[in-house]
Amino acid sequence: MYLAKVYVTLKPAVNDPQGLTIKGGLHALGFDRVAQVRAGKYLQVWVDEPDRARAQAQVEEMCRRLLANPVIEDYRFELEETAAVPGGVA
Amino acid sequence: MYLAKVYVTLKPAVNDPQGLTIKGGLHALGFDRVAQVRAGKYLQVWVDEPDRARAQAQVEEMCRRLLANPVIEDYRFELEETAAVPGGVA
Repeated sequence: MYLAKVYVTLKPAVNDPQGLTIKGGLHALGFDRVAQVRAGKYLQVWVDEPDRARAQAQVEEMCRRLLANPVIEDYRFELEETAAVPGGVA
Repeated sequence: MYLAKVYVTLKPAVNDPQGLTIKGGLHALGFDRVAQVRAGKYLQVWVDEPDRARAQAQVEEMCRRLLANPVIEDYRFELEETAAVPGGVA
C-alpha cells in the first residue's frame, strides 16, 4: 500500500481571493511582515496497490482527472510506502 | 525573506466528509484501489523577515491563532529562504 501526498496549488497567474483574505486576517492580527499568502489543497490518498510504478501512474491519472483542475491549478505528489490506512479503516 | 509551507490536516479522529466525497468520486472513475482519502490545506506564506528563528516563531503563532483550528486540526510547516514573492508583488 502507498500513501500519496498530493499538493494542489493555483497557477501563479491565477487570482487567489482565499489567500488574500488569509493575508488580511494575518495583518489584522499584527503579522505585518506577511508579504503574500497562497492557498492550496493537501490531499492524502491511500492506494492499496503493491507496485510502486503502478501506484505512481494511478495517482498521476487521479490528479489529472479529478484532484486538480489543470486549467487553473498545478499539482505534485510524493509516494511513500505504508502498512495500512490510519485507524485500520478501509 | 522566508517561505513557509504550511500543511493543515484534520486530526485522525475527526470525520472528513470532503475526503469521503473525493474517495467516492475516484471510485466512480474506476480507481477502486483507493482505500482512503483525507483532505487538508496547503498554505504558502511569504514572511518578510530576515531572521530564521523569528520567522519560525511568527509562523508558529500564525498557525495557532489563524491558519489552523487547534480543536480539530493538526499543522506542520517547513521554512525555506527565498529571494522574493512570486511575481515580485508584495
